[in-house]
Amino acid sequence: MTDRYEQINDYIEALLKPRPDNVKRLEAYAEEHHVPIMEKAGMEVLLQILSVKQPKKILEIGTAIGYSAIRMALELPSAEIYTIERNEKRHEEAVNNIKEFQLDDRIHVFYGDALELADAVHVTAPYDVIFIDAAKGQYQNFFHLYEPMLSPDGVIITDNVLFKGLVAEDYSKIEPKRRRRLVAKIDEYNHWLMNHPDYQTAIIPVGDGLAISKKKR
Amino acid sequence: MTDRYEQINDYIEALLKPRPDNVKRLEAYAEEHHVPIMEKAGMEVLLQILSVKQPKKILEIGTAIGYSAIRMALELPSAEIYTIERNEKRHEEAVNNIKEFQLDDRIHVFYGDALELADAVHVTAPYDVIFIDAAKGQYQNFFHLYEPMLSPDGVIITDNVLFKGLVAEDYSKIEPKRRRRLVAKIDEYNHWLMNHPDYQTAIIPVGDGLAISKKKR
Repeated sequence: MTDRYEQINDYIEALLKPRPDNVKRLEAYAEEHHVPIMEKAGMEVLLQILSVKQPKKILEIGTAIGYSAIRMALELPSAEIYTIERNEKRHEEAVNNIKEFQLDDRIHVFYGDALELADAVHVTAPYDVIFIDAAKGQYQNFFHLYEPMLSPDGVIITDNVLFKGLVAEDYSKIEPKRRRRLVAKIDEYNHWLMNHPDYQTAIIPVGDGLAISKKKR
Repeated sequence: MTDRYEQINDYIEALLKPRPDNVKRLEAYAEEHHVPIMEKAGMEVLLQILSVKQPKKILEIGTAIGYSAIRMALELPSAEIYTIERNEKRHEEAVNNIKEFQLDDRIHVFYGDALELADAVHVTAPYDVIFIDAAKGQYQNFFHLYEPMLSPDGVIITDNVLFKGLVAEDYSKIEPKRRRRLVAKIDEYNHWLMNHPDYQTAIIPVGDGLAISKKKR
């Protein structure tokens, strides 16, 4: 029996318009070097929600090679994007890629661990959107640390909240143990987020799962 | 092998907060009387996108018993909702339900076929959001007819664009023929919409599939 989740994802991807060549080169590079960039269908939904929101300032936690920051900047021609990356090599690649796309006037990359950069990042707060796409085990810490920098009508978006669908299965027997703990951590984050007293969250089962959290009025 | 699409949908639904009792009564009524209201996970995503958008005026094509219009009005306390229903019994039920929720000051129900009511509906245009959720075979006609009434930054949302995932399968052997033709019609709509010169669309694989279409800038 084909996996309907995969089948539907493939159907949607087949409907997507081709991206510009330079974006496709970045996607090919990521695939070749096993850089976990966002799934295509998930990226389109993220960009469409941002297009509806029209944020002026976005904070991204987890730049990787700059793929999502570049796609967001291309989608939102007047937005400023601040993005954090702790891995030296990725940071370097991101800075080069952003220059190549001539977006270095609007995408600002912080080099360091997001758990230690709050003061520096606070200088350019508030942010209309905060996009959490870094170490899965730290999601709640990132939320605690940066949520106060969200503008009143702001939106916090978290990627990978379905972890390949594993959070929805009986993950008690997943091996290795480290992976099982990560699935449990994300499942815990989902329950915590969906019951957060100040936020209303919807989980979108696209790509690897997007959580859209908005401050309650 | 469990169907991951269903498994993930069940996971998300289990995380949802309980709705108010009167909403749950409406859901129970719909289930008992086989009224096709929106899936829970899909409704939450729709409401979250509307919460991000904050439309002042919404046009809904396909009221049924008023469930979606009521949920949208409860989510957006200052929005006006205009909704069209051609089935006499459903229209009556919708009007009663809306009254029971004391929302008849903000939800306005047109009785008739949406293909014949454009002039009447045009009186209260433009609309910030148009929600297409009626006869599946008429989607393109509804789009043509009402798209001109969309406000410049408006969003058109179409429900049921995945038709239980059937558009993503080989539907050439689906029986009965009428159902096969309907799947083909929705598949055709998806291709037409994704390639529309004036609109950018993202398909969200939640519930029965939501297409979010926004005018290109």
